[in-house]
Amino acid sequence: MADLDELLRFLKEDAPAGDVTTDAIIPDISCTAAIRAEQEGILAGIDEASTLFAHFGVAITSRKNDGETVKTGDVVLSLSGRAKKILLVERTALNIIGRMSGIATSTGKMAAIVRSVNPACRVAETRKTCPGFRRLDKKAVQIGGGDPHRMNLSDGILIKDNHLALVPLEDALRAARNHSAYKKIEVEVESAADAMKAVAAGADIIMLDNMTPARVQETLSVLNGNRLRDRVIIEISGGIDEDSIRDYAACGVDVISMGALTHTVKNFSLSLEIQPVKVGKE
Amino acid sequence: MADLDELLRFLKEDAPAGDVTTDAIIPDISCTAAIRAEQEGILAGIDEASTLFAHFGVAITSRKNDGETVKTGDVVLSLSGRAKKILLVERTALNIIGRMSGIATSTGKMAAIVRSVNPACRVAETRKTCPGFRRLDKKAVQIGGGDPHRMNLSDGILIKDNHLALVPLEDALRAARNHSAYKKIEVEVESAADAMKAVAAGADIIMLDNMTPARVQETLSVLNGNRLRDRVIIEISGGIDEDSIRDYAACGVDVISMGALTHTVKNFSLSLEIQPVKVGKE
Amino acid sequence: MADLDELLRFLKEDAPAGDVTTDAIIPDISCTAAIRAEQEGILAGIDEASTLFAHFGVAITSRKNDGETVKTGDVVLSLSGRAKKILLVERTALNIIGRMSGIATSTGKMAAIVRSVNPACRVAETRKTCPGFRRLDKKAVQIGGGDPHRMNLSDGILIKDNHLALVPLEDALRAARNHSAYKKIEVEVESAADAMKAVAAGADIIMLDNMTPARVQETLSVLNGNRLRDRVIIEISGGIDEDSIRDYAACGVDVISMGALTHTVKNFSLSLEIQPVKVGKE
Amino acid sequence: MADLDELLRFLKEDAPAGDVTTDAIIPDISCTAAIRAEQEGILAGIDEASTLFAHFGVAITSRKNDGETVKTGDVVLSLSGRAKKILLVERTALNIIGRMSGIATSTGKMAAIVRSVNPACRVAETRKTCPGFRRLDKKAVQIGGGDPHRMNLSDGILIKDNHLALVPLEDALRAARNHSAYKKIEVEVESAADAMKAVAAGADIIMLDNMTPARVQETLSVLNGNRLRDRVIIEISGGIDEDSIRDYAACGVDVISMGALTHTVKNFSLSLEIQPVKVGKE
Amino acid sequence: MADLDELLRFLKEDAPAGDVTTDAIIPDISCTAAIRAEQEGILAGIDEASTLFAHFGVAITSRKNDGETVKTGDVVLSLSGRAKKILLVERTALNIIGRMSGIATSTGKMAAIVRSVNPACRVAETRKTCPGFRRLDKKAVQIGGGDPHRMNLSDGILIKDNHLALVPLEDALRAARNHSAYKKIEVEVESAADAMKAVAAGADIIMLDNMTPARVQETLSVLNGNRLRDRVIIEISGGIDEDSIRDYAACGVDVISMGALTHTVKNFSLSLEIQPVKVGKE
Amino acid sequence: MADLDELLRFLKEDAPAGDVTTDAIIPDISCTAAIRAEQEGILAGIDEASTLFAHFGVAITSRKNDGETVKTGDVVLSLSGRAKKILLVERTALNIIGRMSGIATSTGKMAAIVRSVNPACRVAETRKTCPGFRRLDKKAVQIGGGDPHRMNLSDGILIKDNHLALVPLEDALRAARNHSAYKKIEVEVESAADAMKAVAAGADIIMLDNMTPARVQETLSVLNGNRLRDRVIIEISGGIDEDSIRDYAACGVDVISMGALTHTVKNFSLSLEIQPVKVGKE
Repeated sequence: MADLDELLRFLKEDAPAGDVTTDAIIPDISCTAAIRAEQEGILAGIDEASTLFAHFGVAITSRKNDGETVKTGDVVLSLSGRAKKILLVERTALNIIGRMSGIATSTGKMAAIVRSVNPACRVAETRKTCPGFRRLDKKAVQIGGGDPHRMNLSDGILIKDNHLALVPLEDALRAARNHSAYKKIEVEVESAADAMKAVAAGADIIMLDNMTPARVQETLSVLNGNRLRDRVIIEISGGIDEDSIRDYAACGVDVISMGALTHTVKNFSLSLEIQPVKVGKE
Repeated sequence: MADLDELLRFLKEDAPAGDVTTDAIIPDISCTAAIRAEQEGILAGIDEASTLFAHFGVAITSRKNDGETVKTGDVVLSLSGRAKKILLVERTALNIIGRMSGIATSTGKMAAIVRSVNPACRVAETRKTCPGFRRLDKKAVQIGGGDPHRMNLSDGILIKDNHLALVPLEDALRAARNHSAYKKIEVEVESAADAMKAVAAGADIIMLDNMTPARVQETLSVLNGNRLRDRVIIEISGGIDEDSIRDYAACGVDVISMGALTHTVKNFSLSLEIQPVKVGKE
Repeated sequence: MADLDELLRFLKEDAPAGDVTTDAIIPDISCTAAIRAEQEGILAGIDEASTLFAHFGVAITSRKNDGETVKTGDVVLSLSGRAKKILLVERTALNIIGRMSGIATSTGKMAAIVRSVNPACRVAETRKTCPGFRRLDKKAVQIGGGDPHRMNLSDGILIKDNHLALVPLEDALRAARNHSAYKKIEVEVESAADAMKAVAAGADIIMLDNMTPARVQETLSVLNGNRLRDRVIIEISGGIDEDSIRDYAACGVDVISMGALTHTVKNFSLSLEIQPVKVGKE
Repeated sequence: MADLDELLRFLKEDAPAGDVTTDAIIPDISCTAAIRAEQEGILAGIDEASTLFAHFGVAITSRKNDGETVKTGDVVLSLSGRAKKILLVERTALNIIGRMSGIATSTGKMAAIVRSVNPACRVAETRKTCPGFRRLDKKAVQIGGGDPHRMNLSDGILIKDNHLALVPLEDALRAARNHSAYKKIEVEVESAADAMKAVAAGADIIMLDNMTPARVQETLSVLNGNRLRDRVIIEISGGIDEDSIRDYAACGVDVISMGALTHTVKNFSLSLEIQPVKVGKE
Repeated sequence: MADLDELLRFLKEDAPAGDVTTDAIIPDISCTAAIRAEQEGILAGIDEASTLFAHFGVAITSRKNDGETVKTGDVVLSLSGRAKKILLVERTALNIIGRMSGIATSTGKMAAIVRSVNPACRVAETRKTCPGFRRLDKKAVQIGGGDPHRMNLSDGILIKDNHLALVPLEDALRAARNHSAYKKIEVEVESAADAMKAVAAGADIIMLDNMTPARVQETLSVLNGNRLRDRVIIEISGGIDEDSIRDYAACGVDVISMGALTHTVKNFSLSLEIQPVKVGKE
Repeated sequence: MADLDELLRFLKEDAPAGDVTTDAIIPDISCTAAIRAEQEGILAGIDEASTLFAHFGVAITSRKNDGETVKTGDVVLSLSGRAKKILLVERTALNIIGRMSGIATSTGKMAAIVRSVNPACRVAETRKTCPGFRRLDKKAVQIGGGDPHRMNLSDGILIKDNHLALVPLEDALRAARNHSAYKKIEVEVESAADAMKAVAAGADIIMLDNMTPARVQETLSVLNGNRLRDRVIIEISGGIDEDSIRDYAACGVDVISMGALTHTVKNFSLSLEIQPVKVGKE
């Protein structure tokens, strides 16, 4: 569900006191416009852009949907309405679709690679999102076929190295289990031995951080050997990229999380073109 | 000036109801921590991160400044305070520094290339920023040595092709001049002829959009031949990248604007490491 | 962590344009005051009240802590500061401590009953909280020794009868598992057969809704007989009160959730008394 | 008038990032649903719940009104719309109606008792409301037939014992009268003598705090004897409950205020049931 | 009490993204500055301006107080701190003091005239304030010696001609009395006969709207003749100015309300001058 | 474009918890009403008032437009809708139209005087607006035919005497030029010599502060003599009023800015009258 308040906050960021150019030079006329993809990929942010245009009375006369694959030149949204409103919303809408589709496109690409070698394995996101855009960064990853992981610090328990520098692993897990019966407990470990300890102490998810594929496999073997593999979800994380992801997926892990999905986004290229129309007072 | 309200909004996005992990497992102890650069580049966002840590009572015991160049392994911020607070702020701070330093670093790189061939020419940003992060995206470009261009639709007049599809160039310029004596008027043109018309009609800045270096030079020659070159600022824009920017700078333009500076950011790599300390009630 | 913004919103609700009585009649003098318990029970909201008084420059000269048990007449907070500020904050602080301590006290009472018959069983809350006070209702239950359950619709998956009226159980569970590897999946069931189906389909938690203790035990037996009991957490819910809770706990369930903990709160009785002091300009 | 902003804030508290369960498992289908009373009493919050459902495009096909008396099983609201939206609003709507109807029902009960012995006497509320829900707590008391008393510290003058610990009664009243000609001045007193002094000094309302019915009557007699009874409104307050309220009302006071009306609310029991429908894309 | 949130909102209106001039050209130096009155009158807004400067770390080294009378050239506030912060706050602070002191000065002038002919009569404000500045407009009138009247539609009952076009006077008064025992009821009337009816029906305050002094006196005589004068407060309103106010006050009314106090404000003239200082890094 | 959020904030200021009078006494009936001008002048704020009434379901059956000239008695807006809503919005709407039309009317008057002696010269506003109402104060000046000048500290560079007390003129101008190529640079000067220096150093606009017409002319002559007049815009400012403005305009300056346009506003007189209608349930 698009969150109109959030979208209007974005718009206000780009037009805190209106659009001086348009207000000064554009008469009160209507027109049509088309947003076109200038590259191929998976769309996201269409719901948000449509909601924003619609809020300002601009009709959506045709649209692709979030999750659809497009190629260069495809019309993503066709618009019809007051020119002033289309121009007001233009940049905010393009910035949203551009970032979200960029994320969805690269997530989709990574997910496809992973699936090709290990259909049960998923690509997941982290909390390395652009401040102020968390919710939509997460949504774009989901649209691209990824797992959103936890939304924020309040909705998931993940015990990391920085926690373990302060409290012993077993104490941390005991405290986490006592906190609530309703949340999975994830623990970051750096060795097979710690992985064994964490599972024994009740971890639901083990994150293997910055391990080579070889060490990941070794850790999985140790868990298998102790019949603990099925009791946990195995996530790997840390410096995984398009080149190395295939090897990691092949290890048989459950989830591969990648900060780059949201912290190093390649913008999806789009244009909005207004069709000149015969002027007529609205 | 760091905007605390904005920073707390970012923090709330990552911790809407606190940090369940830390609240559940970390006792009320103090510790120290270091944020280190894991790559070289220009820092930005240090002011914001420091403000946020300080707001939660974490002391900054040493810091690099915004705009400083660092190399891999350099300590960017040294922290001392309650462990719970350091862990609460960690990700938000890293996300801010990571994105802003990424922007500052690539802006600095582009600015250096441009300067090496044309010391009077500047690199500028666009409004293609991440929604919710506009102000800090702009600030990061400035820290990296770029020109912020207009902040938003309310504070600058830029007449683009979509406006000119609706009103003739001269009418648009006349209306813009009538609006206010206090704003520069920029016009996007696609030919030398239109550039001439725009300058004649009172444009202060001409944006040459998507022209090859050859066509840029031709346009400058026409303006020069008509003694109009000195009356306007010339900006070029559209699809400029690290490879082509040198040629454009060499043409003798005043500003080169690049959407990629803020829409396709490469995150600056950082880590925060907590130093285990002897436990003691604060 | 007390959320100052939230607390100031509460204060503004009670003093949107200041305190006319105090502004009109009280000179700018300092005084001391004591907040006393007028009943016995478990305190909660002390952190919030202290934060609010401190924000207005009122010193906390002594305090009980959240989670402490008090008896009638105990001083909960001793205050010293400007009379105008103590009077401004008084009612908001008492309303917060009164509601939160009321919740903590009754949660503590239920948890003690449950523990006495089944030490492994916990009392949990629901989302039946007072709108606008969710976070603090949840916090008060935790302080009283309860499990907070999910905070809101965004942070936990709970498939209820109203969902199952729209989609078949197995489809719902499959879709939920596909959503994310990071969240436990809870399913509400009304029969032993459905409980079996849910566990088989991958539910992590089973909520037995509105069952008699006898039917709860029957369901547990069926699960036990199929060696599925250890694979799930069993929650019971629906119309449980002080009288019946002992029997449910004795069944061997893991969690007992009670809407009444937060929807039918008995206010904890408190008073704030100002000690008259010799007047002196601050 | 329902305040949509406030209602959306409540909804956001329960769904800060949407409803993960519904988003994951429920297709985009429409359905009908009914909210039923599971006890008898006076309804309140129907206006708010209807406004919230309507905002999300859910049609209200039948409704009871605020202030109507219902019995167990009565349909309070009939709904028709997208299943996702009904499920999104469900808990927030029930929490609002549950609390407000609980307040209206007990206010109505107290008002009826009072009226039966003293038709001119009214039941009134205090500021002992749930922080964040003040306006609706006050509205619910009014719907139940009570007097809302002052909304907050800014809109009424009430000189209490804590004020009188700091300034003498006559000084306080003089300052209050000087403040504004437009507000009634209420004074809390603990003896007949102080009541006399307060009326003589210009109090419009006298609050007799924590007096037994006998002492209330004695105070009224003293005022009557001095022909001052008609010049003031007499409110009694402090520890009045369902058992003692009749005796107080019989004394001939004008208003009886009760903190319990809003600080110790018994939730009104309700259910929302979705009717399974033949699936069809909306 | 100055409301920091409100003040920061005002500042943000004047500096949504900082102060570009100062940021671009002023080094990080400290300085002193003085705000001087450039006319005589009564000060207001000093508390707000001081709070705002202090929030940004600027020390107030001397200050006049709200309500003090100053003459041309008097130093109102002496400041010491970072130059950037003084320049940031300057205009917002001057706009607040300028408007509030303008209001206080003219209120004080009117109040003095009224007092000179009728010491018991007060000057009061209306709700004709600048949207967004209501609270401070009201506060300025109080500082100038006026009565704030009701703050808003929520905190006072005033039955005006537009209400009486829709419901008969007696019905309106009955409904208002039933609403709450805690609010005074004011009725606007246009004739002595209606004034009589309103008092008889229980009005606490009578507003005589747009009457000549002669008709005001006639109305007072009728009320006096019926021994009703002492039972009500008499307010006159409508088109009263500096010339006519003396005659109205002489009639013996209780309050004279004037929209012009806040809707037609003469700005109080002030200047802020920075003292150049020897530069030194802070 | 009217900003509904801003308008609703204004309304909430006047009705934070509804309209108690109307809620208590007015039945749910519909009516018509007319807002009439009670003076002549130029209208502004009609767009805002219409947006606000429309938001509450009140139909606008006829309306004058912003910028239209009206005379006493003209109907500005005709309304039709629920009486409760018209009464709720009445005062906020009148306060907005009253202030904005007051500003537009006096701006129009000044602009006409200026135009009559110097058609190329414009009247401009300053930042001396009512805090909380900046955007609409600026809009009203524009509607009256004035130049809005900079909106706030973030969107224009203006180097004033207080800056020049801290940095030398040339340094300030160099730093300002380095900041951005996209903003005009304005400098306040107090002598012809400084004006020369500022233009030579690259100022785009020169503000001559508090000069007599004679000194303004002398300064223009010096600039003319040096062939610099055409390279800058000349603004004069400081203590200009209806009497002196003609002489200043005659000097041949480009812009005359006046703080009084927004800091000393004469409210435009209006009334709203409800037409009594035959009652009928809506």
